[in-house]
Amino acid sequence: MATQRLASWAKSLEYSDLPDEVVRAAVRSFYNWAGCAIGGSTHPATTIAQYQTLHPLFGPPTASLLGHKEPLKADPQHAALINGIASHVHDYDDTHLDTIIHPTGPVASALLAVAEWKKGVTGKDLIVALVVGIEAECKVGLAVWPEHYDVGWHITSSTGSIGAAVAVSKILNLSTPETAHAIGLAATQVVGLREMFGSHTKSFHPGRAAQSGLLAAIMAQGGYTSSEQALEAKRGWANVVSSPKTDVQQRLANFIGIPSGSQASTLGLASTEAGRWEVLRNSFKPFPCGIVIHPIIDACAQLNNEMFQKRLELADIKAITAKVHPLVLELTGKRTPKDGLEAKFSVFHSGACGLIFGKVTPSEYKDSVVLSDEVITVRDLIQAEIDPALTADQAIVTLALTDGQTLEKHVKHAVGSIDVPMDDAMLQKKFLGQVSKVLSNAEAASKALWELESMDDVSAIASFR
Amino acid sequence: MATQRLASWAKSLEYSDLPDEVVRAAVRSFYNWAGCAIGGSTHPATTIAQYQTLHPLFGPPTASLLGHKEPLKADPQHAALINGIASHVHDYDDTHLDTIIHPTGPVASALLAVAEWKKGVTGKDLIVALVVGIEAECKVGLAVWPEHYDVGWHITSSTGSIGAAVAVSKILNLSTPETAHAIGLAATQVVGLREMFGSHTKSFHPGRAAQSGLLAAIMAQGGYTSSEQALEAKRGWANVVSSPKTDVQQRLANFIGIPSGSQASTLGLASTEAGRWEVLRNSFKPFPCGIVIHPIIDACAQLNNEMFQKRLELADIKAITAKVHPLVLELTGKRTPKDGLEAKFSVFHSGACGLIFGKVTPSEYKDSVVLSDEVITVRDLIQAEIDPALTADQAIVTLALTDGQTLEKHVKHAVGSIDVPMDDAMLQKKFLGQVSKVLSNAEAASKALWELESMDDVSAIASFR
Repeated sequence: MATQRLASWAKSLEYSDLPDEVVRAAVRSFYNWAGCAIGGSTHPATTIAQYQTLHPLFGPPTASLLGHKEPLKADPQHAALINGIASHVHDYDDTHLDTIIHPTGPVASALLAVAEWKKGVTGKDLIVALVVGIEAECKVGLAVWPEHYDVGWHITSSTGSIGAAVAVSKILNLSTPETAHAIGLAATQVVGLREMFGSHTKSFHPGRAAQSGLLAAIMAQGGYTSSEQALEAKRGWANVVSSPKTDVQQRLANFIGIPSGSQASTLGLASTEAGRWEVLRNSFKPFPCGIVIHPIIDACAQLNNEMFQKRLELADIKAITAKVHPLVLELTGKRTPKDGLEAKFSVFHSGACGLIFGKVTPSEYKDSVVLSDEVITVRDLIQAEIDPALTADQAIVTLALTDGQTLEKHVKHAVGSIDVPMDDAMLQKKFLGQVSKVLSNAEAASKALWELESMDDVSAIASFR
Repeated sequence: MATQRLASWAKSLEYSDLPDEVVRAAVRSFYNWAGCAIGGSTHPATTIAQYQTLHPLFGPPTASLLGHKEPLKADPQHAALINGIASHVHDYDDTHLDTIIHPTGPVASALLAVAEWKKGVTGKDLIVALVVGIEAECKVGLAVWPEHYDVGWHITSSTGSIGAAVAVSKILNLSTPETAHAIGLAATQVVGLREMFGSHTKSFHPGRAAQSGLLAAIMAQGGYTSSEQALEAKRGWANVVSSPKTDVQQRLANFIGIPSGSQASTLGLASTEAGRWEVLRNSFKPFPCGIVIHPIIDACAQLNNEMFQKRLELADIKAITAKVHPLVLELTGKRTPKDGLEAKFSVFHSGACGLIFGKVTPSEYKDSVVLSDEVITVRDLIQAEIDPALTADQAIVTLALTDGQTLEKHVKHAVGSIDVPMDDAMLQKKFLGQVSKVLSNAEAASKALWELESMDDVSAIASFR
């Protein structure tokens, strides 16, 4: 039921069905993705995949690798993989807060590769396919959250292949049965263990999900068959990847399964009558690291500003206490990160950078910064305490100063959360900060992407230089 | 521990460490795989992947697709995928009975593609890498069996990517740390839901496992990092894919983790002092279908012979009763299969063919045979009853004849089991039966493969025509 329902919903959704705010959310999501993919194109996790290993295996060059001043193309499978890696490697992408899925990476990386390969895909075509893919991965994610994540799956990629498959099926105009087979082919490729966090392989996950979803859709288009109940069957995706859990069927019905109309779930696939658009619940990271430490960075950056106003120096700090949500230490408790990738999982490093620099961008996760004496000194002053009363977007940071004073910031909703969203100007600053390090004309790229809706052929995105 | 141990064991194993019987088991495994891959090359699950969908994406042609009278090459990733699909599609491959893993498909499909790409790989190189890969996948499989299979994973592919990664690491001469990273990259790509059984996607699983393992090894060779505890970590492979289970650490230690020497487990990685070679426990299918119905087919084929001796006709049969192991109806209980792929999951169709034709080969799973009146008539006479006293390689089939007589066969160990293994002559007959339908000179291919050990460059396998 859920598999067929998702396929038929995806097949029938049209651009004219999308409310203006959904289009706007999709454009912002794609814009943010493009900035991250271009910005991440120079990271070793991307360049090793591209140059040291996979380049000799590339097929006919029909799809661009983003972030290069000279055109650089691969076949669409490798383009999806490599752009997907790049889009995630700085942990700077977007977040569907209900599931902590970073939804655009797997979907957009697959879509842009296919769009360029097939040619003539308009901005509107891309937007509706992007929405379809994001809704698909977030709805199946909601059905298995949180057990699925808790047991150890990287939910971005384990749902991302399904989102990418549905999105590519949409852009290739697959029939409903073909789309259902694509969902099955994607569902059977479950990529992403959380154990890989802190290594290159974390970024491989959304890239591989993009590639797997793309593969699923093109094989289904060619007549490859899979299960017609891939999501909901006893030994189908939802049961297998969220074991042990007993109410998977009910959850799938809540989020996907019930036809629209009088019985539609308010949480189900969106239509004009009912349901909920998950893309509207997507948020954007102001800081390039796991979202659970954003409140602490926000607090520390505010304290940096306050210290500057009061002409205080770092040497005036005697002790730093951070009260945090329980997940913070579970996910980001690395006390002595050995490099930039590990530092993304250190609330201590990240908070220290907020205090010292007043900002946290990819530059603050360079290995040299992670290992600098100044950062280590401040980092080691930070004590983190779990406060179960705090929500995940809250933190309290207190500085004890050598003169006996204290400074305190209580962040009630971290910047970038749904309550304090990144506005277009903030997104643009983030985009330009990433893209101008890589391309010559970041402003032109930004302008074109803001106008995605009116683009005649999205292949133009590949020609940003 | 398990990850590092497996990597260092694989790195250090040399051809001279292999007992003669291990070499012989490896040659037989590879021989059987090659016959299946060539025989399966004309099946739609293979040809759709090859021609209708992936052909335009092939990279530089350095690795052969088996089973073509004209040379047909792809990049090694696609060759591994497509030969892997072909090797499994008739359900005619090998079986490690302790885990029901079909071990050679993922490993050999990856290895031959890499060997041809890199050139100059000898038969001995291939054999030691094949053994390393088979041992790897079977040992990790033992650590999660049976919960992993029960929850719904297709254990051949979910362990196969790890086996393929270790094997390709071996043939590319990766260091121990690189091999460990390859294990992690493979472990994070978990392919294969049992829900896909009966569709094309079942065969996609070992193909994709081959491809994923190959990708893992070449990325690790280029410097890509993953976890160093990918198998045993709290949120690593074994825990995540066998949830809920509490003794994973102990099992990993039993099968992989304990260093050889006085404390070595008798079930652990084999060495001169201790351990067990899993490749010696590999068996070969006499019939192209799930191994649980082999005892029934064996009994029915014997009854066909007895009826022929007694000059009895099918019309003389009034009723057929099959007493079977409980798994038979769970896995192969399809009463009215709609096509050949579904018929492989029908004890009724398979038993009927044994009775009617006295043999069950890929021809007996053609759609036209599945839908023929004669087969359907006999199929519908069969009643299957679970008998918990029977082991998985046993069955009792009883024919009630119209004249009141009964004929009965009690198969105590099905042909192809460890107790009644396929000998070389039987393997050769099976090989020639498959290969002569596809290639002009099946005899020459057979002869060359039996002499694998002395082959100077295994690329010669690609030139069988």
